[in-house]
Amino acid sequence: MDSQYRRSSYGYFDDNAREYVITRPDTPTPWINYIGQEEYFGIVSNTGGGYSFYRDPRYRRITRYRYHSIPIDQPGRYIYIRDAETGEYWSATWQPVKKPLDFYECRHGLGYTKIRSRYRDIETEVTYFVPLKQTFEVWWFKIRNLRDRETDLQLFTYVEFCFWDALDDMTNFQRNLNIAEVEVEDNVIYHKTGYRERRNHFAFFASSEPIVGFDTDKEVFIGLYRGYENPIVVEEGVSRNSIVYGGHPIGSHQIRLRLKPGEEKEIVFILGYAENPPEEKFIAPNIINKTRVKQLLREWLNPDRVKQAFEELKKFWDDTLSYLHVETPDEDINRIVNIWNQYQIFITFHLARSASGYETGIARGIGFRDSNQDILGAVHLQPLWSKIRERIIDLASIQFPDGGTYHQFQPITKRGNREIGGGFNDDPLWLVASTIAYIKETGDFSILFEKAPYDNTPGTEEPLYEHLKKAVMYIDRNRGPHGLPLIGHADWNDCLNLNVMSTNPDESFQTAPDRTDGRTAESIFIACQFVWAVKELAEVAERIGRKEDAEYFRKLVNDMIERVKKYGWDGEWFLRAYDAFGRKIGSKENEEGRIYIEPQGMCIMAGIGLDDGKAIKALDSVKKYLATEHGIILHWPPYTKYYVHLGEISSYPPGHKENASIFCHPNAWIIIAEAIAGRSEQALDYYKRLNPSAREAISHIHRTEPYVYAQTIAGPASPRFGMARNSWLTGTASWMFVAITQWILGVRPAYDGLMIDPRIPKEWSGFKMVRRFRNATYVIEVKNEEHVNMGVKQIIVDGQPIEGNIVPAFNDGKVHHVVVIMGKKE
Amino acid sequence: MDSQYRRSSYGYFDDNAREYVITRPDTPTPWINYIGQEEYFGIVSNTGGGYSFYRDPRYRRITRYRYHSIPIDQPGRYIYIRDAETGEYWSATWQPVKKPLDFYECRHGLGYTKIRSRYRDIETEVTYFVPLKQTFEVWWFKIRNLRDRETDLQLFTYVEFCFWDALDDMTNFQRNLNIAEVEVEDNVIYHKTGYRERRNHFAFFASSEPIVGFDTDKEVFIGLYRGYENPIVVEEGVSRNSIVYGGHPIGSHQIRLRLKPGEEKEIVFILGYAENPPEEKFIAPNIINKTRVKQLLREWLNPDRVKQAFEELKKFWDDTLSYLHVETPDEDINRIVNIWNQYQIFITFHLARSASGYETGIARGIGFRDSNQDILGAVHLQPLWSKIRERIIDLASIQFPDGGTYHQFQPITKRGNREIGGGFNDDPLWLVASTIAYIKETGDFSILFEKAPYDNTPGTEEPLYEHLKKAVMYIDRNRGPHGLPLIGHADWNDCLNLNVMSTNPDESFQTAPDRTDGRTAESIFIACQFVWAVKELAEVAERIGRKEDAEYFRKLVNDMIERVKKYGWDGEWFLRAYDAFGRKIGSKENEEGRIYIEPQGMCIMAGIGLDDGKAIKALDSVKKYLATEHGIILHWPPYTKYYVHLGEISSYPPGHKENASIFCHPNAWIIIAEAIAGRSEQALDYYKRLNPSAREAISHIHRTEPYVYAQTIAGPASPRFGMARNSWLTGTASWMFVAITQWILGVRPAYDGLMIDPRIPKEWSGFKMVRRFRNATYVIEVKNEEHVNMGVKQIIVDGQPIEGNIVPAFNDGKVHHVVVIMGKKE
Repeated sequence: MDSQYRRSSYGYFDDNAREYVITRPDTPTPWINYIGQEEYFGIVSNTGGGYSFYRDPRYRRITRYRYHSIPIDQPGRYIYIRDAETGEYWSATWQPVKKPLDFYECRHGLGYTKIRSRYRDIETEVTYFVPLKQTFEVWWFKIRNLRDRETDLQLFTYVEFCFWDALDDMTNFQRNLNIAEVEVEDNVIYHKTGYRERRNHFAFFASSEPIVGFDTDKEVFIGLYRGYENPIVVEEGVSRNSIVYGGHPIGSHQIRLRLKPGEEKEIVFILGYAENPPEEKFIAPNIINKTRVKQLLREWLNPDRVKQAFEELKKFWDDTLSYLHVETPDEDINRIVNIWNQYQIFITFHLARSASGYETGIARGIGFRDSNQDILGAVHLQPLWSKIRERIIDLASIQFPDGGTYHQFQPITKRGNREIGGGFNDDPLWLVASTIAYIKETGDFSILFEKAPYDNTPGTEEPLYEHLKKAVMYIDRNRGPHGLPLIGHADWNDCLNLNVMSTNPDESFQTAPDRTDGRTAESIFIACQFVWAVKELAEVAERIGRKEDAEYFRKLVNDMIERVKKYGWDGEWFLRAYDAFGRKIGSKENEEGRIYIEPQGMCIMAGIGLDDGKAIKALDSVKKYLATEHGIILHWPPYTKYYVHLGEISSYPPGHKENASIFCHPNAWIIIAEAIAGRSEQALDYYKRLNPSAREAISHIHRTEPYVYAQTIAGPASPRFGMARNSWLTGTASWMFVAITQWILGVRPAYDGLMIDPRIPKEWSGFKMVRRFRNATYVIEVKNEEHVNMGVKQIIVDGQPIEGNIVPAFNDGKVHHVVVIMGKKE
Repeated sequence: MDSQYRRSSYGYFDDNAREYVITRPDTPTPWINYIGQEEYFGIVSNTGGGYSFYRDPRYRRITRYRYHSIPIDQPGRYIYIRDAETGEYWSATWQPVKKPLDFYECRHGLGYTKIRSRYRDIETEVTYFVPLKQTFEVWWFKIRNLRDRETDLQLFTYVEFCFWDALDDMTNFQRNLNIAEVEVEDNVIYHKTGYRERRNHFAFFASSEPIVGFDTDKEVFIGLYRGYENPIVVEEGVSRNSIVYGGHPIGSHQIRLRLKPGEEKEIVFILGYAENPPEEKFIAPNIINKTRVKQLLREWLNPDRVKQAFEELKKFWDDTLSYLHVETPDEDINRIVNIWNQYQIFITFHLARSASGYETGIARGIGFRDSNQDILGAVHLQPLWSKIRERIIDLASIQFPDGGTYHQFQPITKRGNREIGGGFNDDPLWLVASTIAYIKETGDFSILFEKAPYDNTPGTEEPLYEHLKKAVMYIDRNRGPHGLPLIGHADWNDCLNLNVMSTNPDESFQTAPDRTDGRTAESIFIACQFVWAVKELAEVAERIGRKEDAEYFRKLVNDMIERVKKYGWDGEWFLRAYDAFGRKIGSKENEEGRIYIEPQGMCIMAGIGLDDGKAIKALDSVKKYLATEHGIILHWPPYTKYYVHLGEISSYPPGHKENASIFCHPNAWIIIAEAIAGRSEQALDYYKRLNPSAREAISHIHRTEPYVYAQTIAGPASPRFGMARNSWLTGTASWMFVAITQWILGVRPAYDGLMIDPRIPKEWSGFKMVRRFRNATYVIEVKNEEHVNMGVKQIIVDGQPIEGNIVPAFNDGKVHHVVVIMGKKE
């Protein structure tokens, strides 16, 4: 791409390659990518920074990363290149040496990152990825001599091993500096700290090329008081063959290359995780049994095998992305929907909120609320269905017998996290939502009869349906003075803590106890969420023959709607809550925090106010008070001081995080609400304010990656207005995907088929979508020749008009052509 | 000092100044010092690295330090100096710029560190210290132009603020990157993150010199992808006057100096901690009330005031060290006993095991066992008496009603730490030991009648004496098959876990539950410790008229002695324990871990085996199997694999930590045992192997500071044999002081006076000690003209011979001259 067409000085989208191409290394924050698809994952930044782990980023951290190191984003997966004649050295990934490269390019693709560089006519390319189904990563390295003379080069690899438990690794030096152990055999460095005791796992780092030296002791390799930018071993060009024993274990190979003019060399490095059965751990006292690893390396230390695996990875993503593909007049929509948003959803589904550039992998729970919402955007990805089904059952299994639930579970034990406990009263309803989304996508009602225990207690198993019913009953039972749901410890907004009354700065708002009886503070958000979710559950109940339940649910829903209208309306918008003293929150009666985003979105998504003008009034208020050029803020005005009765929300400086930043996640609800309300242009407008590709041109302000959503963007009350934080692992990914595909483009799964109801700008002449849905492929062409912004006149399936706007689920493995004619019905 | 007399290339002791002088900055590990005496503490390394905190190093961390950063030992208290004409810049403390200085010298003194440097004829000196009773630190800075021309200089200070909770600070970036707030007023930078919400404290960083610029945003000051060695602001010489808002808060002043040839300038920087009463937090919305700080700065931003405070600090240490002073023929003894060991004990008493170069200040408990032992060496320091008394009562207050105890308490709440819990069965007896040491030193029997609750539960208060009695009864009640004390979760050796049976690598041995019924594994160590402590308690009981108790105690002691002799002797040495299956540990029946150090020391200290040859035999075995040139190892042979029935001890690689390293703490017990056994030369020999000053010449092997003890020195099974780890915060400090002063020099407090019973090498002609004891000063001159190694012939006090070897407690505020004639009694 010619740079004159670029919107950003940092890079550009290469949509054909499904890559984001970064063209200068010094991005405003490390712009990261993930490698790994299943159990072995890694973070890779655009300069090679990052780390890897096996399943659990806290307890099985393989390599070390220093969050917010100085310089930032160190260490990582490094290859130092040294000109043996001049002694000059640099890095294949710019960092850590940071020599001004003659050429630099980082391509973040799906499950891989490729970084190319050129310095004094030595060209390198390194591709990092995890082959499908494997528990190791490959560094596929190519180096080429563009000089007109033979060149003598030395390569030094570098990884820094973590002592497995990432928290202990950075806090327990009195112990950790005594435990390091490694082995070096053939060209392979084995990191085996802890293996001689209880661990049955170790790491290995191998080279396809013979090594002329190695190092495993950080202090020896780097040298006292030196940095990654000038390790003594690289500077002097002499490996020490150090064997660490206590101290910090690293892996560094040295390879000597004599390259003729124009000659290219391919080398494969493999960094992996391995386990042995307890009875087969050793072949001699304290010597690892390496049989399995050696076998694996025989296969994989081979560029051809690696190339094949890379192609397989590409195919995996071809397939994964083929379940939903759109062509709209809008380039930002196309690339984000077709590539990056789905990729982000895939990562978010797997990693929850555990390991990113901001999440250190230490606080390791799978959030109940988070993961249920992550499913909403992931459920069309059929390769994930069995995992999603399992996740839903795992989540149901940490419910309490009363229908409430733990707020998190631990990924390895799958047990509820007792430190945080329960009492987040929106939680149970998200399980209803994810189950319904799963059923609508898959048609698999059988999940409702799958049994799950309560609080993981054997003997308490009941069908999932009963869990959902108990979730409803939990809300029904826990209502306050206005008959609205009690908020509990917090609802979706974790930081609105109406019962905590915290005055101790040393306690976390999340784990602090509630200090009221909890029977007064009510959430209008949960009330609307209840209507939204339980309305659907009523239909599900009916479909499985539970008529009485359906009636009970509908009665509750109707009662809740009335209460929201009566006690939840502030005149121009929906109220947010009643506090522990029964006072309104998010009301014109308040000085600060007069209007909140969440109920405006959720109440309208629940259908409340569409009949009586409240919805439009509320959305107009959102536009008037909350909308900014960078998105919609959480509430207005920001809290300028700490309110003990509101909690963490007022703890942040104005404009940041829950205190009136653009919290991106509920922006999607407003987009959906605008679409529901028929204001398609407004819906798309809001959508585009957050679409990361559409923000690419302001990367210097936005700062985080232009290919994925972030959790927050600083609001206008902040001097950093427009600056994003906490990219990658956010519910925004799921919800923005739902908003654009199901509510703006309007193609959404229903029990019996695909409902199509687009809400698009009048100026669009239409769009296309290919949607694989329940064992059939729908090639949908939406035509908007009348240039309306909503309304389907007719749908023609395989040449035949159908009644209504639900295209049937054919389940026949075939391709079906669907033409949707928009316009005013005659 | 002329370098030719130096034993080390890294530095030398300046005993007159009571300083260790480091003459090259690149020490093998950061060689640190502490500033602060009471509530505000800081760590300062020889290159300015380190951090500060107020009372609690986890919850009131003022500045940030990256443990094991790359480069190591960053950040710290930095002053960058920039030549405004050439643009060249360097650091007053070598780090972080690391320019090769023309002169460098770091002087670690008592409560202060002074670093001097010279670069291109600009000379600087910076002295860091905390004035007595203050909650701030001073950087007393001098700069002098040695050039023959006027020079235009810029100074840039640098501190990096911590978000108060040191653990959160390094793990919770999704939150922390949003909360930073500062104010800059006059020449003062105020760090007020969290102040707008629940915190009532803030930090401030002030300069006595007007500033021409400042920065408070780390990213702005350092620049993206740069390091502390080349901040963009310093490189360009232009402060940005940045106000951080979210991001990382720092404090940097810029000062412009035009120095004439020979001109010197003195500048005071003050970094402090301040609190405001809740109702006086603000003077305007979100604007700190700075009244108190301004008042304080008016007084203190003044080199004269600072100089005076520095003199006061010197006087404080003159006084503190005047309670015990020796002159022996051995320089290493003199300097370590008179200066460094007492200083280390002072620090250890205050900081327990919380914050050092190895302890990150996160795991913040005050250990029951640790702190009681810390008191043994600290109790002669009269300025600490009221704190020691309080500490003993605090420790008693976490005892359980059954006489057992929590293993740790939290310094702010003083409540027992539930995560670790209790069941460390040696713990209660250390309370007996510390109380007795306190009484013997102070004569204050009234502490026994001071009331303390159990488990901090109001209403359960009983006199301390009852707590001690319950401790005895706890041991009596918890005995195993041989009638020996049950070991519980562990005894003194935390890592000998006979009941844990851990197979899960993700659990800590310390917090893992016991998986046996705990009724079989017995500790010979505790048996001997019981004899050692309860023998003394019997005498105390008698002295306060509890004759029945005294009899009961003595009966138990005699019974225990018989059991140790019968079941605790292995033929050549004392056994260590019986495991959960009733098998011997530390026996010739074992393949590994055949002999342990602990019981050999403690049993003989308890007097067991002195009558029947066992003591000498055991000590000979120690010499034969455990003694090395670098000290005595914990056990032999090391464990080469993990034993589930032994636990953490076998988890370490051989030669490190509890697996057969030279664990220094129990070395003191062997030294005492040798002294008791009358083998004075051997006692001193062992003592000198660990005396840090005596190890100064092998600093390149020893690696940690040559002025303080470390917890461990790698044993011969390690390739790092002789390398120390975990310097500063170790029970070694207390015990080695007790060993040398009370058992080798032989001057020890007794209930009625000072007992004098030296065990010194024959070649010594004597030694002197000045000892302030219970409101009198004893100038003791020991004469060994007969060149014996033990035995007091006569003691002459103020010219009059006395009977026996206990010099009375005169309590008259006067100086008494004591002459001790060693030799064989006629």
